[in-house]
Amino acid sequence: AEDRANITSFLIHCRIMRPDDANIAGNVHGGTILKMIEEAGAIISTRHCNSQSGEHCVAALARVERTDFLSPMCIGEVAHVSAEITYTSKHSVEVQVNVLSENILTGAKRVTNRATLWYVPLSLKNVDKVLEVPPIQYAWKELEEDGKKRYEEQKLERLVTKQRNGDIIFPVFNPEPYTVGYSQSSLIHLVGPSDCTLHGFVHGGVTMKLMDEVAGIVAARHCKTNIVTASVDAINFHEKIKKGCVITISGRMTFTSNKSMEIEVFVDADPFVDEPKERYRAVSAFFTYVSLSKEGKPVPVPQLVETEDEKRRFEDGKGRYLQTKAKRQVQMQPLTQQ
Amino acid sequence: AEDRANITSFLIHCRIMRPDDANIAGNVHGGTILKMIEEAGAIISTRHCNSQSGEHCVAALARVERTDFLSPMCIGEVAHVSAEITYTSKHSVEVQVNVLSENILTGAKRVTNRATLWYVPLSLKNVDKVLEVPPIQYAWKELEEDGKKRYEEQKLERLVTKQRNGDIIFPVFNPEPYTVGYSQSSLIHLVGPSDCTLHGFVHGGVTMKLMDEVAGIVAARHCKTNIVTASVDAINFHEKIKKGCVITISGRMTFTSNKSMEIEVFVDADPFVDEPKERYRAVSAFFTYVSLSKEGKPVPVPQLVETEDEKRRFEDGKGRYLQTKAKRQVQMQPLTQQ
Amino acid sequence: AEDRANITSFLIHCRIMRPDDANIAGNVHGGTILKMIEEAGAIISTRHCNSQSGEHCVAALARVERTDFLSPMCIGEVAHVSAEITYTSKHSVEVQVNVLSENILTGAKRVTNRATLWYVPLSLKNVDKVLEVPPIQYAWKELEEDGKKRYEEQKLERLVTKQRNGDIIFPVFNPEPYTVGYSQSSLIHLVGPSDCTLHGFVHGGVTMKLMDEVAGIVAARHCKTNIVTASVDAINFHEKIKKGCVITISGRMTFTSNKSMEIEVFVDADPFVDEPKERYRAVSAFFTYVSLSKEGKPVPVPQLVETEDEKRRFEDGKGRYLQTKAKRQVQMQPLTQQ
Repeated sequence: AEDRANITSFLIHCRIMRPDDANIAGNVHGGTILKMIEEAGAIISTRHCNSQSGEHCVAALARVERTDFLSPMCIGEVAHVSAEITYTSKHSVEVQVNVLSENILTGAKRVTNRATLWYVPLSLKNVDKVLEVPPIQYAWKELEEDGKKRYEEQKLERLVTKQRNGDIIFPVFNPEPYTVGYSQSSLIHLVGPSDCTLHGFVHGGVTMKLMDEVAGIVAARHCKTNIVTASVDAINFHEKIKKGCVITISGRMTFTSNKSMEIEVFVDADPFVDEPKERYRAVSAFFTYVSLSKEGKPVPVPQLVETEDEKRRFEDGKGRYLQTKAKRQVQMQPLTQQ
Repeated sequence: AEDRANITSFLIHCRIMRPDDANIAGNVHGGTILKMIEEAGAIISTRHCNSQSGEHCVAALARVERTDFLSPMCIGEVAHVSAEITYTSKHSVEVQVNVLSENILTGAKRVTNRATLWYVPLSLKNVDKVLEVPPIQYAWKELEEDGKKRYEEQKLERLVTKQRNGDIIFPVFNPEPYTVGYSQSSLIHLVGPSDCTLHGFVHGGVTMKLMDEVAGIVAARHCKTNIVTASVDAINFHEKIKKGCVITISGRMTFTSNKSMEIEVFVDADPFVDEPKERYRAVSAFFTYVSLSKEGKPVPVPQLVETEDEKRRFEDGKGRYLQTKAKRQVQMQPLTQQ
Repeated sequence: AEDRANITSFLIHCRIMRPDDANIAGNVHGGTILKMIEEAGAIISTRHCNSQSGEHCVAALARVERTDFLSPMCIGEVAHVSAEITYTSKHSVEVQVNVLSENILTGAKRVTNRATLWYVPLSLKNVDKVLEVPPIQYAWKELEEDGKKRYEEQKLERLVTKQRNGDIIFPVFNPEPYTVGYSQSSLIHLVGPSDCTLHGFVHGGVTMKLMDEVAGIVAARHCKTNIVTASVDAINFHEKIKKGCVITISGRMTFTSNKSMEIEVFVDADPFVDEPKERYRAVSAFFTYVSLSKEGKPVPVPQLVETEDEKRRFEDGKGRYLQTKAKRQVQMQPLTQQ
C-alpha cells in the first residue's frame, strides 16, 4: 500500500464517456481510449524522468505494444485509467496501463484494455538529446529480469519494422464493391497547439486517435454495420511531427477473416511552411476491427476482393492474423472467454 | 488521373459527423461544414504557395463566394471534402471545394456543397506583406479565361460591399413576438490558440462556424422548429482578428419569405489587452435558413413584424432574395430538382 | 437603457447546449455552466480594467461566491449569460452574472443561476503586479455601500478558508458499498494552451469545470442515478496554475442529507517540467449534488457509511448544510418555491 501511494510511479484517472467519444451505436471509439492511455503514460513517465534534479525533459512516446480491446465501452460509463512504471532501461521507460470500464448505474466493472508503452526522455532545451532515466526499485528481482526481456524483445522488433514504409495510397475512381479502393479513405489535419507537447511535437495519443478514426471509416464503409476496434498491432513512433505540419492519415483494408477486418494506416507529415523539409512517413500501423450485431455479438464480414498487389498484402495480413491467433493460444485465454 | 495524384493541387479529406456537429434533430450545422471547407482550402492553398522555394507564407482567407447547402447532412454520415486549385492570379488563389455526404450504412452518396474560396499568401515573417502566387497549369486555355472572369467579378464585388459596416445591434427589452428584437442574439468568444493560424490570426472557418451558430439561434428563436442553413451570401474577410481578442458575434433577422429566413450577422473584434486599438467590425454576412418538418420538407415560417428601420432592411433583404432567385433560374437548376 | 448599452460594463452571451455539455439524461453539467459564467466574468472585467490608458492587464479570478443551480438546463436549450460589473475596489472587480435558460421550441425562459465573482487585474508584463481598477459609476449611493459591504465580507472569508488545505485522498482497495472510499475518484489533466489566459495561467472556469466533472463522478458512483449539481460553496483561487502543469483533481463524499450529497474536491498542481517547484494544493471546494427521478424530482440518496475520520468530516458537512439552510431561510426563498 505504501508503494501505491508513491505518486511518481502510480497514477489513476477517471472520466465519463461522452457522446462525441463514441459512434452512433454508443460504442466508445478505440482511438478515444488509446488517447487516454497515452496521456496517462506520458504524464507518469515525464514525472518520473524529472524526479531527480538535473536537466528537465518531456517523455516522448517511442512505441506502443500490441493492444487488445477486450470489451466495448459505452457512452455514460466511467473509464478508469491506471498507469504504473514497470521497467526502466538507461534511456527508456516502460509503462503499463490498465483501463477499466464502470457502469455507474449498476456498479459493474470490467477490464477493457491492458497496454504497454515505451517512452524516451528528451531534453526540454534540446529535443534531440536523450537524457538518462532514474532507475526504479523492483519488489522482486524477477520483475526486473522480465522487464529486461521485454525491453530486448521490443528493441529487436523496432529494428525489423523500420523498413516497411514505402507504400502510398492512390485514389481509385469508381471502385467495385468490396475491393480495397471501395473503402480506402484519408483525412487531413492541421497540427494545432492543443495537439502538442511542451516541445511543440504531436502527442502520440493524438496521432493514434486520428489513425483509429480513419481505420473506423474504412471498416464501416466496407461492411456498413456497427464496427468496433478489436486490436492494434505494435506501433513504432520513429519520426516526430512538429506543430504547424499538415498530416494526411490514410487507411486501406489489407485482410478479412470470417469475422474481422485488418486495416493498414499511414501517417504522412508535410512540414510545408516551417522548414525546407520534404513530406515524410511518420507512423504506420495495422488496426483490426470487428462488426457487431445489435446484441453486441461479432458477425461475419463481407470478404475482400483483391487485385494482384492486394493479394500479396492479403497473404501478409493472413500471416499476421494466424501468428497472433497462435501466440494468444500459447500465452493466455482472452478475457472474454475466462 | 496523373493530375489528380499531384499532391499540391488536389486534396481529399473525410470525417464522420458526430453528435456535437449537429442540432437536436440530428442535422449537421452549416457552420461545421463551412469550417471543414475552409480548412481544406487553407491547407491546399498554403501548400501551393509554399511549393516554390522562397519566402514562407500562410494563405489567409479573403473571400467565400455564395454557398448553397443542397441537402442536409446527418450524424453518423461521412463527409468527404475534396478541394482543388482552379485559378491563380498574381496575389490570390481560387479554391473550389466539393462536399459529399455518404451514408455508410447504405453506401448512398449525395453532393451537399460546392464552394469557391479566395486565399491570399501572407509572409510568415511579415504578415502585412502579400507574396506572389506560383502559377498553376491549366488543362485547357478556356479554364484560365473563365477563372480570370471569376477573379475580376469578385474583385468588383469586394469593393462594393466594403461600405456596409456601420450598424450595431442593441438589446431590446420585452420585445413583441416575431419582431426583430424578439429573436436577435449575440455570442462572445475569447480567441484562443486553437482558433488561430501560424500567424496568430483567427482561421476564417472558425469565424464562419461562430457566425452560423448565432444565425441558427436567431432562426430557431423566431420559428421554434427544426431549422437548417440553406445558404450563405458571399463573405469578405477585410479585417484580420488576432489571438487574444474578444469577438462579439451578433445576429438579427432581416427578411422572411414564405419558407425562408434571412439573418444578418456581424462580427466585432475587441483587441482590448494587446494593442491601443478600438473595437472594430471584422466581418459581416447574410445567412438564409429554412424550417423543416419531421419528414425533412421545408415548411412555412412566421412572418417578420417590423419597425420603420426594419422595414427598410426587409425591403433590402427582399431585393437580395429576388435577385438570387432570378440568378439561380438563369444559371442552373438546383441539385435537389435534378 | 443608455447605461445598458455601455459596452464596458454590461455583456450578453448565448449558446446552444450540446450533447457533450450534458449527462446521459440530457441535463447540462454544472461545470459547463460555471465555465460559461467565468468566461463572461473574465471578459467583462478584463475589458473594464483596460478601459483607461496605462499598463495592460488580464483580470484573474480570485473568488466565486456560493452559487446555486436553481433549475436544470437541457440539451438543445439556449443559455443566455449576462454579466455586469456591480462594484470595484482599488484592486478588485465584482461581477454579477445571471444565467437564463430558454427552450427555443416553446419560448419558455427560466433563471438557472445568479453568480458573483471577484477578479483582480494582473499586469501583462509582470504577472505578480496587481494594477489599480478604474472606478465605476453607481446609479445610487446605496449600490456602492452595499458593494463595499460584500467586498469586506468576502475579504474576511478568504482569510478564514486559507488554512483548510492539508488533506490528501489515498486510494482504497475493495471498499465497502456507500463508504467514502467506494465513490472517491480522481482525474488528471495536462494543462494545454487552450486552457490558459494570455498570461499562460489556467482560466478559473476551466478548473471549476474539471472539479464539477470529478464531483459528478463521485455522486453518480455513490447513488447510481441521474444526478445534477445543486450548488457550489464559495471557492477561493489562492494559487495560480501554469501552462504545462499536470493537475490532479480528486473528490470524496463528505456528507449526505436525506436528498443531497456534499462532495469535497481538491485540485493539486504539479509543475514537474518547468520549475524547481513542489506539487501544491491550488484550489479546493465543496459541491452539493441531488439525485433526480425520471420526472426530474429530487429523490432520497443512500446514506454515507463512515470511519472515525470520515465521521468528523460528516459532522463538519452537516454544520455547513444546516448553516446554509438557515441562511437561505433568512435571506430569501429559493426560486423553485416562488
